[in-house]
Amino acid sequence: MVTIKDVAKEAGVSVATVSRVLNENGYVGADTRKKVMKAMANLHYSPNEVARSLYKRESRLIGLLLPDITNPFFPQLARGVEDEVNKEGYRLLLGNSDEDVQKELDYIQTFVQNNVVGMVSATNTVDHELYNALQLPLVLLDRTTEDYPSVYSDGREGGRLAAKTILEKGARHITLMKGPAHVKPAQDRYKGAMEMLSEAEVDFSVFSTYSYSFEDATSWAKELFTKYPDTDAVIASNDIVGIAVLHEALKRGKRIPEDVQIIGYDDIPQCSLSYPALSTIRQPAYEMGRQAAQLLIKLIRKENDVDKTIQLPVQLVERSTTRKE
Amino acid sequence: MVTIKDVAKEAGVSVATVSRVLNENGYVGADTRKKVMKAMANLHYSPNEVARSLYKRESRLIGLLLPDITNPFFPQLARGVEDEVNKEGYRLLLGNSDEDVQKELDYIQTFVQNNVVGMVSATNTVDHELYNALQLPLVLLDRTTEDYPSVYSDGREGGRLAAKTILEKGARHITLMKGPAHVKPAQDRYKGAMEMLSEAEVDFSVFSTYSYSFEDATSWAKELFTKYPDTDAVIASNDIVGIAVLHEALKRGKRIPEDVQIIGYDDIPQCSLSYPALSTIRQPAYEMGRQAAQLLIKLIRKENDVDKTIQLPVQLVERSTTRKE
Repeated sequence: MVTIKDVAKEAGVSVATVSRVLNENGYVGADTRKKVMKAMANLHYSPNEVARSLYKRESRLIGLLLPDITNPFFPQLARGVEDEVNKEGYRLLLGNSDEDVQKELDYIQTFVQNNVVGMVSATNTVDHELYNALQLPLVLLDRTTEDYPSVYSDGREGGRLAAKTILEKGARHITLMKGPAHVKPAQDRYKGAMEMLSEAEVDFSVFSTYSYSFEDATSWAKELFTKYPDTDAVIASNDIVGIAVLHEALKRGKRIPEDVQIIGYDDIPQCSLSYPALSTIRQPAYEMGRQAAQLLIKLIRKENDVDKTIQLPVQLVERSTTRKE
Repeated sequence: MVTIKDVAKEAGVSVATVSRVLNENGYVGADTRKKVMKAMANLHYSPNEVARSLYKRESRLIGLLLPDITNPFFPQLARGVEDEVNKEGYRLLLGNSDEDVQKELDYIQTFVQNNVVGMVSATNTVDHELYNALQLPLVLLDRTTEDYPSVYSDGREGGRLAAKTILEKGARHITLMKGPAHVKPAQDRYKGAMEMLSEAEVDFSVFSTYSYSFEDATSWAKELFTKYPDTDAVIASNDIVGIAVLHEALKRGKRIPEDVQIIGYDDIPQCSLSYPALSTIRQPAYEMGRQAAQLLIKLIRKENDVDKTIQLPVQLVERSTTRKE
């Protein structure tokens, strides 16, 4: 078996230096580090053995399950998680579940097989039986249940705020878009908006949607104005859908925000690039990712007095698709 | 030491079933699989040991290095890689380098420590000395050099096509935006466009930029029209920048495409959501990711006669920011 001494000899450095590289502690210059890594590669030295037998270093892998990284809300979330785990010396195994229970199960199995020390899950298909059995520190991100530690933003309040904004700006024929039924945060914001609209003396229509994909968004936008041609304000289920509605309204010759006001949800980076720029309710995606990672690391380290349910505030971002008065 | 027999006993299934779960071959029902995974977790069974000593199963981890997943071009690329490696039973370790050599080195070190069997790298800071020394199968994605297997799209041709399109549509005061100097694909498309413009009898200006961030894009768009107010066509360095230019032109009361034509690059999903929708040169990002993963897996499996340099074609996507005639 190749030992750490062999690696030190091959690299022409001390055993202590190899140890510092392996344990990622203490200062090692970039050139020296490369030498050690080369020596490890040349000798086909298996760091797993070191990790277990020589240094008892635990795995530093954390699993991150997302629904789909190509939905523009999730890259920000993922970067927040990655930057924070990276800072603390952990690394990310990434999986996109596509909201498919079987795929999620596959990924969790691989996470277990690769000895992850914890998991962040932003999927909608949390299987309690399995998650409980795994006995791994787990943080739900962008979702919450009473059963698990979680980091999320206040969707109910976000929905209320979106509706309140539209109401205050004098809308008369409001269309409220309802997001996919299986996405809990979408339902929270829908409920919040519905509450607020129901409290007001105003007529409104509800328009149901079942995904957040770019293609679907475009066809919903068309359908919305066909079904409800008098709509003068749209509370969109998220920003992608909001931008599609904006686009469709402009195509139909409507002035924004004079004829139709639109408010999105999430504040993805693309909002400020739409024209007119989309008003929206901001979720602090990067910060949510960061705090989920922080919470998970506290749980991995078995710290005491950890706040296991973290709700972050949402915020109105007024751009140009809502009226100024 | 906990053995596979203990796991089988705890789960109430046969050893063969546990083996099928561990090796991910043969059919195992979801419920049975959960039982086995629970048993593994309950017994603190370390699958690494199995992997090495019982089944000689190799690591199935592949490292993916990206510049920054929050740039909308990369999620598509990453999904292509992930879907393909996933199909073949491999899993992805993800790292964002932010084009920082030190960070890249850190990630590669972790990849080595976690025993990855191969690596896909889409960064601009390939350190030949290190990459050679690692002796790991490696595929460059969205970049190419003669030294490594690579999958990329034809940037030179893409630049030529963008310029050709603008020229044919009667532009007279063209501004060509040059992307970041350290990003090779940006330079390729710049060169292609420059060649085509130089061959034509037309005046044009070059406008230099040094990043692709959303914030920078907005300020460049302003600066561009201040410096070159007569611009009637912009060849943007990518879609994000193109959408920012579009936005700024509309703000200044210019009609699109009558007064100003704009062509982007990449065909990120957001193009069809801009208004007017952005004409662009399409890179097949998802397909590039998929083919990079396929190539890497062939290299890992030491297949013969593998084509190690794969150039995918680009394509003009005409939307509404270029004239119809």
